[in-house]
Amino acid sequence: MVDLTRIMDDEVFMAFASYATIILSKMMLMSATTAFYRMTRKVFANPEDCVTFGKGENAKKYLRTDDRVERVRRAHLNDLENIVPFLGIGLLYSLSGPDLSTAILHFRLFVGARIYHTISYLTPLPQPNRALSFFIGYGVTLSMAYRLLKNKLYL
Amino acid sequence: MVDLTRIMDDEVFMAFASYATIILSKMMLMSATTAFYRMTRKVFANPEDCVTFGKGENAKKYLRTDDRVERVRRAHLNDLENIVPFLGIGLLYSLSGPDLSTAILHFRLFVGARIYHTISYLTPLPQPNRALSFFIGYGVTLSMAYRLLKNKLYL
Amino acid sequence: MVDLTRIMDDEVFMAFASYATIILSKMMLMSATTAFYRMTRKVFANPEDCVTFGKGENAKKYLRTDDRVERVRRAHLNDLENIVPFLGIGLLYSLSGPDLSTAILHFRLFVGARIYHTISYLTPLPQPNRALSFFIGYGVTLSMAYRLLKNKLYL
Repeated sequence: MVDLTRIMDDEVFMAFASYATIILSKMMLMSATTAFYRMTRKVFANPEDCVTFGKGENAKKYLRTDDRVERVRRAHLNDLENIVPFLGIGLLYSLSGPDLSTAILHFRLFVGARIYHTISYLTPLPQPNRALSFFIGYGVTLSMAYRLLKNKLYL
Repeated sequence: MVDLTRIMDDEVFMAFASYATIILSKMMLMSATTAFYRMTRKVFANPEDCVTFGKGENAKKYLRTDDRVERVRRAHLNDLENIVPFLGIGLLYSLSGPDLSTAILHFRLFVGARIYHTISYLTPLPQPNRALSFFIGYGVTLSMAYRLLKNKLYL
Repeated sequence: MVDLTRIMDDEVFMAFASYATIILSKMMLMSATTAFYRMTRKVFANPEDCVTFGKGENAKKYLRTDDRVERVRRAHLNDLENIVPFLGIGLLYSLSGPDLSTAILHFRLFVGARIYHTISYLTPLPQPNRALSFFIGYGVTLSMAYRLLKNKLYL
């Protein structure tokens, strides 16, 4: 049997694992935030949720949308759209033998930018805060994609 | 050339590969389910779909939303939001040398909880069935993230 | 320390890395396309975007939806729903020791089908162009899942 645990001795891979886990955990917080707002504001998407969580007569009236909930959901979807490419490209980039300090710079910038994006979206901060944080994360991922393809293109 | 096939001799990794493939295949079923309901109920999101699949005069009337279709789409999006963290964190966790039986317990609980979530969402079962299945899957992923960061944090 | 860079000497893995990076970069283009249409058509989802990017008195009127923007967003979400299973299953399939030419055939078909899907969706081409491209990508992913589970099932 291969001693796979040794893969985790690679510093770039260990750094990627740490940053990826942190940003995925942050993304999962968005689910909890949505649930929190749905419960406290009584805003539900399903009739069965109204019945159980929106107690009181005429629970169907809680089947509605709410600006706050929709904002969290947009932030969550934006996370998904940007963290999925980071995960895929970042994993492959980490395995392609990059320089440790360059790699960590990429990971830190991405994670920082996405946390700043969430803060900008949920506060909300005036634009272009959110646009800026979005494009930093976007640029970091494209930079990793470029380095990966430049070194390892095989079609 | 490295004999990468030996990675698959690692039992934890092989178990992760099996459970991840199963839950991703289940998620893909949601696309087919959406397509099925769109076709049988003639509910389309695009004018070009109405023209081809919603035969008959005045096909534009099929450009509408439907409770059943929207429910499947919400279940699908919830899958995406939860299976992406499981894939990323689970992959890295599998490579961090966990105990085999602990790892398999995590994978089984997650896959079981997500299947139960889909059943709860599509039937629909009364709450808190869906909420419970959601939080089991959520907790399993956070537990893997915690174990990973505790052992391998490298920032 | 393990010399992880040698993983990238495996030809199947290198091919997967290249195709995955290409299709993820294509998916990221959808974000830029959405931003482009939002800016040029002045169609925003958040009040703070209207204030900054939708200059002029009464900026709130730009808080609206638009067919073109919604179409790009649907194409983007469909990408996410299909590329996530390809990434997860494709990565594990690549590590399971498949035949090189079979693997590359899978990757090429998938990437080609998804690019064709985007073209079909955004032009839009008449159906069944989009349906066909969707089902080719879907079938390729299921074929990899089947081969993986047939060889390496471990529950």
